[in-house]
Amino acid sequence: MTEKKVILDLDTGVDDALALAYAIANPTIDLIGVISSYGNNTQVQTTENSLKLIDLFKEDIPVYPGANHPSGVDDFQVMPVSKQIHGDNGIANLTLPIPTHSPAPLAGSDFLIQAVHQYGKNLTYIPTGPLTNLAIALKKDPEIANLIGHITLMGGALTVEGNVTEAAEANIYQDPEAANIVFTAGFPLTMVGLDVTLRTLLTKKETAKWRRLGSRASKFYADLTDFYIDAYADLDIDKQGCALHDPLAVSVAIDPTFISTISLPMKVVTKGDNYGRTIGDKSRLMNKTDVAEVATNVDAERFLNSFMDEMTNFLVNF
Amino acid sequence: MTEKKVILDLDTGVDDALALAYAIANPTIDLIGVISSYGNNTQVQTTENSLKLIDLFKEDIPVYPGANHPSGVDDFQVMPVSKQIHGDNGIANLTLPIPTHSPAPLAGSDFLIQAVHQYGKNLTYIPTGPLTNLAIALKKDPEIANLIGHITLMGGALTVEGNVTEAAEANIYQDPEAANIVFTAGFPLTMVGLDVTLRTLLTKKETAKWRRLGSRASKFYADLTDFYIDAYADLDIDKQGCALHDPLAVSVAIDPTFISTISLPMKVVTKGDNYGRTIGDKSRLMNKTDVAEVATNVDAERFLNSFMDEMTNFLVNF
Repeated sequence: MTEKKVILDLDTGVDDALALAYAIANPTIDLIGVISSYGNNTQVQTTENSLKLIDLFKEDIPVYPGANHPSGVDDFQVMPVSKQIHGDNGIANLTLPIPTHSPAPLAGSDFLIQAVHQYGKNLTYIPTGPLTNLAIALKKDPEIANLIGHITLMGGALTVEGNVTEAAEANIYQDPEAANIVFTAGFPLTMVGLDVTLRTLLTKKETAKWRRLGSRASKFYADLTDFYIDAYADLDIDKQGCALHDPLAVSVAIDPTFISTISLPMKVVTKGDNYGRTIGDKSRLMNKTDVAEVATNVDAERFLNSFMDEMTNFLVNF
Repeated sequence: MTEKKVILDLDTGVDDALALAYAIANPTIDLIGVISSYGNNTQVQTTENSLKLIDLFKEDIPVYPGANHPSGVDDFQVMPVSKQIHGDNGIANLTLPIPTHSPAPLAGSDFLIQAVHQYGKNLTYIPTGPLTNLAIALKKDPEIANLIGHITLMGGALTVEGNVTEAAEANIYQDPEAANIVFTAGFPLTMVGLDVTLRTLLTKKETAKWRRLGSRASKFYADLTDFYIDAYADLDIDKQGCALHDPLAVSVAIDPTFISTISLPMKVVTKGDNYGRTIGDKSRLMNKTDVAEVATNVDAERFLNSFMDEMTNFLVNF
């Protein structure tokens, strides 16, 4: 099996933590680096979370510090609902040892640019938080839009309503300006949004299976995910389980047959009532180029089985 | 070729007039009746327009008077933009002789119910205006949702913004309550919205071809459509041509291979900023039933060729 060079751009976050483990577990992924972002928590906190999780799996993957605030503003405050869903520290208020590594001495956007030039079409970039780092990298080096292999992002909502407002999904809502730059830059891009991630529910039946494995990592991930499932129930998002937003993006990046897509020139609304809405751009509707692949359905059962198999076989070892 | 029993529900309207001619021209359609609706103009005016056009083609198709106002209100005013697009009289301010027939002595909704019971699965209903008549019929006889063959409606916008507001398309915006009832009733339903109709542009090159045919009907339809094309340009909707909204719905009803669709449980937003938005219903996302087929792409070239062939061969005769 040929390994793909992969960069995750994470605002770690419970489902980011699941995506990170799933990517490390996957034999077809060579995870060459993690870029951190503000989002589910501050960039300082999400950087620390990723470093801790990488330690948990005895890996040596560098974490490059990314943006600590959205485009066009100087500050960032964690949304109260983010703390409710992901815990005050982003990882369900659980504790892990102080990281053995420091963040890498290179900005996330610079690492991305460097990796695009090094790996080209063999590089897949998977942002599961705001698209700020990607927009910064593009501004620094517009060539990356043509050079990169593929971007598979978790974010947006095209055929269903958002989760922050009726119009907007959380990752996009954090920085619609950056997202609009990304969606209109001509990147080869797949959008894995709420349209499909809300169809991928993980329940306490699955986390109980992890807990029974008895390893440190399996118990940690069971507790982490149960917090998230409880938050989904408390906030009345879903009473049955939690959506596997970020892991689905990783899965789709490796095997696009998990989803069905439509091809559409996309934009992001950056002002007015629909701030943060991801929607087809009427003015580019006749275009054959600069279209995104937008996921509209998912083989949820096959994805969930694959996710559980990989994760279970992996978590038992740590 | 087996004929399909078809009812058109029209708020005639330039593109309704095109749809009516196209349906009469099509050898696979047995047009058993037209139901009129308020919308592009008053119900009285749209009824008269349909009767006049049927006379133009020397047909004897009955026109059943439908709703003259939306659900939940007692009155209806033609929107100024409707007059700009369709003319003060709905048919580009053109004159046709006084109709030789009166409206049929049966309400549109009652005719629909009767036809559903008579023809069942062989009946296709094509509303190209507000969904008020269909909602009224459903309220009178909920059984029709299970008995009818298919509904192919022109309306809504899922993957692009609306044309009345960012959220809403005109037909749905006229009566979101009725539309929501229709979308959640379990009808076998295809939504042909702006997602696809905006990709089907008719230009003055085509209308010039009709004008050259020299018949009364061909000259009338050339003038009618040129008014509409000019309005599109004046209102900056499209500088190249006009969208074939309503004819595409007729075409899809006969040959669904013109479009590609996604299956989605739909709802219509009936209050707030997104009033009139057609969008997937998160709470029914796991449902396998009560899903609509929503058109997301169209083979515009094949449709336009087919439309022009049928229309040209037809208009020359009248």
